[in-house]
Amino acid sequence: MSDQKRILIVGGVAGGASAAARARRLSESAEIIMFERGPYISFANCGLPYHISGDITDRDRLLVQTPESMRSRHNIDVRTNSEVIEIDRPNKRIRVRDLQSDTEYTEPYDTLILSPGAEPVQPPIPGSDNPRVHTLRNIPDMDSIITAVEKENVTSAAVIGAGYIGLEMTEALIQRGLNVSLIELLPQVMATVDPEMAAPLHQHLELHGVDLRLSTSLTSIEEKADRLALKLNDGSALDADIVIMAVGVKPETKLASDASLELGPLGGIKVDDHMRTSDPNIYAVGDAVEVTDTIAQTPALIPLAGPANRQGRAAADNALGRDSAYPGTLGTAICKVFDLSVATTGTNEKRLKKTSAKYEKIYLHPANHAGYYPGASQISLKLIFDPNTGKILGAQATGKDGVDKRIDVIATAIKANLTVHDLQHLELCYAPPYGSAKDPVNYAGFIASNIITGDMKVFHSDLADNPSDDQFLLDVRSPAEVQAGTIPGATNIPIDELRDRLSELPADKEILAFCQVGLRGYLATRVLEQNGLNASNLTGGYKTYRAYKG
Amino acid sequence: MSDQKRILIVGGVAGGASAAARARRLSESAEIIMFERGPYISFANCGLPYHISGDITDRDRLLVQTPESMRSRHNIDVRTNSEVIEIDRPNKRIRVRDLQSDTEYTEPYDTLILSPGAEPVQPPIPGSDNPRVHTLRNIPDMDSIITAVEKENVTSAAVIGAGYIGLEMTEALIQRGLNVSLIELLPQVMATVDPEMAAPLHQHLELHGVDLRLSTSLTSIEEKADRLALKLNDGSALDADIVIMAVGVKPETKLASDASLELGPLGGIKVDDHMRTSDPNIYAVGDAVEVTDTIAQTPALIPLAGPANRQGRAAADNALGRDSAYPGTLGTAICKVFDLSVATTGTNEKRLKKTSAKYEKIYLHPANHAGYYPGASQISLKLIFDPNTGKILGAQATGKDGVDKRIDVIATAIKANLTVHDLQHLELCYAPPYGSAKDPVNYAGFIASNIITGDMKVFHSDLADNPSDDQFLLDVRSPAEVQAGTIPGATNIPIDELRDRLSELPADKEILAFCQVGLRGYLATRVLEQNGLNASNLTGGYKTYRAYKG
Ligand SMILES: Cc1cc2nc3c(=O)[nH]c(=O)nc-3n(C[C@H](O)[C@H](O)[C@H](O)COP(=O)(O)OP(=O)(O)OC[C@H]3O[C@@H](n4cnc5c(N)ncnc54)[C@H](O)[C@@H]3O)c2cc1C
Ligand SMILES: Cc1cc2nc3c(=O)[nH]c(=O)nc-3n(C[C@H](O)[C@H](O)[C@H](O)COP(=O)(O)OP(=O)(O)OC[C@H]3O[C@@H](n4cnc5c(N)ncnc54)[C@H](O)[C@@H]3O)c2cc1C
Ligand SMILES: CC(C)(COP(=O)(O)OP(=O)(O)OC[C@H]1O[C@@H](n2cnc3c(N)ncnc32)[C@H](O)[C@@H]1OP(=O)(O)O)[C@@H](O)C(=O)NCCC(=O)NCCS
Ligand SMILES: CC(C)(COP(=O)(O)OP(=O)(O)OC[C@H]1O[C@@H](n2cnc3c(N)ncnc32)[C@H](O)[C@@H]1OP(=O)(O)O)[C@@H](O)C(=O)NCCC(=O)NCCS
Repeated sequence: MSDQKRILIVGGVAGGASAAARARRLSESAEIIMFERGPYISFANCGLPYHISGDITDRDRLLVQTPESMRSRHNIDVRTNSEVIEIDRPNKRIRVRDLQSDTEYTEPYDTLILSPGAEPVQPPIPGSDNPRVHTLRNIPDMDSIITAVEKENVTSAAVIGAGYIGLEMTEALIQRGLNVSLIELLPQVMATVDPEMAAPLHQHLELHGVDLRLSTSLTSIEEKADRLALKLNDGSALDADIVIMAVGVKPETKLASDASLELGPLGGIKVDDHMRTSDPNIYAVGDAVEVTDTIAQTPALIPLAGPANRQGRAAADNALGRDSAYPGTLGTAICKVFDLSVATTGTNEKRLKKTSAKYEKIYLHPANHAGYYPGASQISLKLIFDPNTGKILGAQATGKDGVDKRIDVIATAIKANLTVHDLQHLELCYAPPYGSAKDPVNYAGFIASNIITGDMKVFHSDLADNPSDDQFLLDVRSPAEVQAGTIPGATNIPIDELRDRLSELPADKEILAFCQVGLRGYLATRVLEQNGLNASNLTGGYKTYRAYKG
Repeated sequence: MSDQKRILIVGGVAGGASAAARARRLSESAEIIMFERGPYISFANCGLPYHISGDITDRDRLLVQTPESMRSRHNIDVRTNSEVIEIDRPNKRIRVRDLQSDTEYTEPYDTLILSPGAEPVQPPIPGSDNPRVHTLRNIPDMDSIITAVEKENVTSAAVIGAGYIGLEMTEALIQRGLNVSLIELLPQVMATVDPEMAAPLHQHLELHGVDLRLSTSLTSIEEKADRLALKLNDGSALDADIVIMAVGVKPETKLASDASLELGPLGGIKVDDHMRTSDPNIYAVGDAVEVTDTIAQTPALIPLAGPANRQGRAAADNALGRDSAYPGTLGTAICKVFDLSVATTGTNEKRLKKTSAKYEKIYLHPANHAGYYPGASQISLKLIFDPNTGKILGAQATGKDGVDKRIDVIATAIKANLTVHDLQHLELCYAPPYGSAKDPVNYAGFIASNIITGDMKVFHSDLADNPSDDQFLLDVRSPAEVQAGTIPGATNIPIDELRDRLSELPADKEILAFCQVGLRGYLATRVLEQNGLNASNLTGGYKTYRAYKG
């Protein structure tokens, strides 16, 4: 048969196993061999922290497929403990080391699909090679962390790095009853969101007993009296029984670069939109490759499971003669931090600031569902958009419930090239337990559109903190709210008294109005502007200002 | 000032109050008067059942705005207990009856905005005028139901009609400790979804002790010994202390039709896409109007709060010289039924069957989030699409969690004219507590696309029930699953044995393969077709077949 191809796959987890399964569905006759260096394939990487925490009790549940099931269901030849150590491109074959027998052999291919993933970054910190220092990538890593945690007298841990793996591990170890210090170089956790959006997480982590050290780095690790003594760059010291190193991942590219496959500017394997490398017979997918960032249209490293799975599927398609383009990655991601969720899609402000792109941003803090229905909680949502075209550039949210839903809706809108104007008209499920007649996403659309139409001028917390002499800070909240804290220098006129007290405002100054979340501030600007004053509204209100102040 | 207009608004709740508030934001100088027949404005209609149930303990929480707050915040003249009884179009004025003083007066308008809502249908059933028979539309209705329920010796209720208000009232009264019979003319509850999607609700209602009577109608009500004796069309009888009549709503159009405003074919007020009636000075919004169904592009009555709010906003825009088009209604809706949610967007199959439109449908039953993470539950999702173009026509879902999110994402996709192919590539939030690396919506995209590309042929439960002699039913599940029930006449070959047992299949027949949810059936068709057999897959598998059987 014409498609009796030999398809060899390097890496047996998200991208690799997806490619293998899809290839088999497309071709019963292809010979498909999947090589995996480790002892397990097709495991739920993303579930590892939740088995450590004890949430997932049954370890076997993490093994989505086994070599046996891949063989019996998909007729795939799975070789675990088998490291592919060389790609011989001229001869279209690979060299494999069987790690159990310590022997080597070669296998020819028609098509090779690489999904070697990314490895944890190991910063060159003295003492970081101590066996009490762990990284977490696979099942053996997880097993050894559990063994370490369950040792007698283990009561404390330091987690280095507050990305999502660091955050999940922090929560897992707290759940295990350990005292946990979380050390992060940046002034914020969860670097994929902007600092003011991460601020609620900081409070929340501390509420849960985490010893959070932001803007701090680890300088050395020393073993002392059966514990680790950590030194930090602020001169302080810390004791911990175990250390989890979670400072990021980097693409596994040795195999590819040894074979002179092109790498991209960020050090990932370079692929085209069909997941093809610089060698037309070799595809690469997953954490190891550079993708195109949907918003910026520049190369990006976005090591996430959804993209890896879908890229694996696309590579198999193309390997078997289909024409399957992978449309780039938006970077939609979410992390649970105790009772909060933090999620993001598209680009963030930190990245935009480094470009010349024009953007505007809004904040809102609506309830996840009808406020009068029990269990309502606040979502803080940030929407970033192009103020000329209304194009949505990104969104971020934190909150207790309903964060994933709003980010998913906005991610869908971005993929579909909807504008902020379109968000106003989205028709989303409404009954009191689920949302509001105007969903938070609709509100985001209203607010952003009001800026574009000129119905609302906005200002931001940096200006609130530093108004000029020509500006006048006006707090339109109730006296009780002001009592609980306001922006220094603000004058208070409650919104409901504003129409009667216009004469108290300086006609020659720009009025910088604000309220708690932005709604009354907006109403105030409407009243003021129509009365001949020049007024803007602090988007997100005092709540966003507080988050901005950290 | 040029916009010192007189804007009069009839109806002071969702559409009316939204129009009033928006009008004020657009114009400080307009004179805005809002007339409301009842004693309350701006109340949360949708919350009424949840106060009856006791979920919302504080009645005041239902009053989103009061006449006082509308005056102080928005400078709006609110007149409650004031019924607008006539529109004098030639003279551009209305006649108002003050229901408290029982006096009448007229008010001139520049622009009139009608948002009179819809009234509960009162079927002409003998005895239905008994004071123990209630409908639920507003606060006084709710109060009188609560009073009735709290009377001594009230232990049972009959709810007539199983739309969302009937379902919510059923749950509310069960929560109140009453025995509840739910009587529905159709063979299913929640008529907005297709019967097989409602089937899980039937079981769930019965699980919660509801005496569910489908395909049954009420023929008479008689008061007997301090209770009501109900007769049903199946000859049976029923006693109940109170009856809730919830058989639907119809637009309140008397005022409009008396003034010869055009009505649409379905009896709602006819408006253009700017919410303008046949009189250019009169707008109408909300439950009283006919909207354009986004999918069918035909007139429709879709009485929901989100559309009413957004239409009110658009009408105010247009009344004040903006150009604000209302883009039609998709009919996205959701209802909580005890622990289940049922939601829908776009059109349903029942409606499509009455047209000549070509459509295909798929079913899937994925977990709401990673199956290995605690608390996972199944969502049943139906996606309806055009098999030629991939255009998404509608979606429905039931399940314990995550139903609203998936329907919202699909509703957004429909609004954005995405196809089923695009659903494959949506990038949705994934971490184990929230979803899966391939979200249910991605799966829906894969499955539907596989049909369009010809990679998977499907058949449906009606055929499974009635295969021809040329067809061969093949159950590819495990023997244990087959033991628990299968489709009559099916032969069992477990998927993992299929490749080795191909010779057992009749080469001259079409193989109708099925499994539990559709995945293994799909794998089977891939194996069979590539081995020269003609095979299709039962979409949704045995689970959908069971739901189809009811
Ligand atoms: C703890 C943790 C939590 C995570 N949580 C989330 C989450 O919540 N959401 C999310 O979207 N993503 C999450 N991820 C990321 C996600 O798991 C990855 O994006 C995804 O697994 C990448 O797939 P991949 O196939 O590229 O690489 P991997 O899944 O890492 O698979 C690569 C495999 O290739 C093998 N390999 C490498 N080189 C060779 C070779 N030369 N020969 C043979 N085999 C080789 C490796 O042993 C490895 O098993 C998480 C990751 C971790 C570690
Ligand atoms: C119990 C219940 C639960 C609901 N749950 C949901 C839900 O979960 N989700 C959802 O989307 N929708 C729900 N709805 C529907 C939603 O409430 C309506 O779609 C929405 O309120 C319609 O707004 P409207 O302004 O058109 O009408 P209404 O909100 O009904 O307001 C119309 C008002 O006009 C007044 N009026 C009528 N005629 C005159 C006159 N001539 N003069 C003066 N005043 C007049 C009426 O007294 C009435 O108060 C629910 C409705 C009810 C009754
Ligand atoms: C599971 C794994 C092996 C992929 O295997 P897979 O067979 O492609 O994936 P699934 O079992 O989800 O099946 C998907 C296929 O079934 C089809 N399918 C799913 N449900 C279906 C249904 N109800 N009806 C019909 N078809 C269905 C899909 O269309 C898809 O087929 P296609 O790609 O040919 O279109 C791979 O993703 C993996 O190893 N995962 C674990 C590792 C991982 O992802 N880690 C990161 C996240 S924790
Ligand atoms: C509440 C009600 C009076 C409408 O009043 P409203 O002022 O339009 O509504 P909201 O309070 O939600 O405010 C929305 C406005 O504030 C703006 N806004 C909201 N949050 C904001 C924020 N954080 N920053 C800036 N602006 C904000 C919106 O853009 C919108 O203004 P716009 O229409 O001019 O763009 C009306 O919807 C009502 O009566 N509701 C109850 C009845 C009902 O809806 N029943 C059915 C559902 S239960």
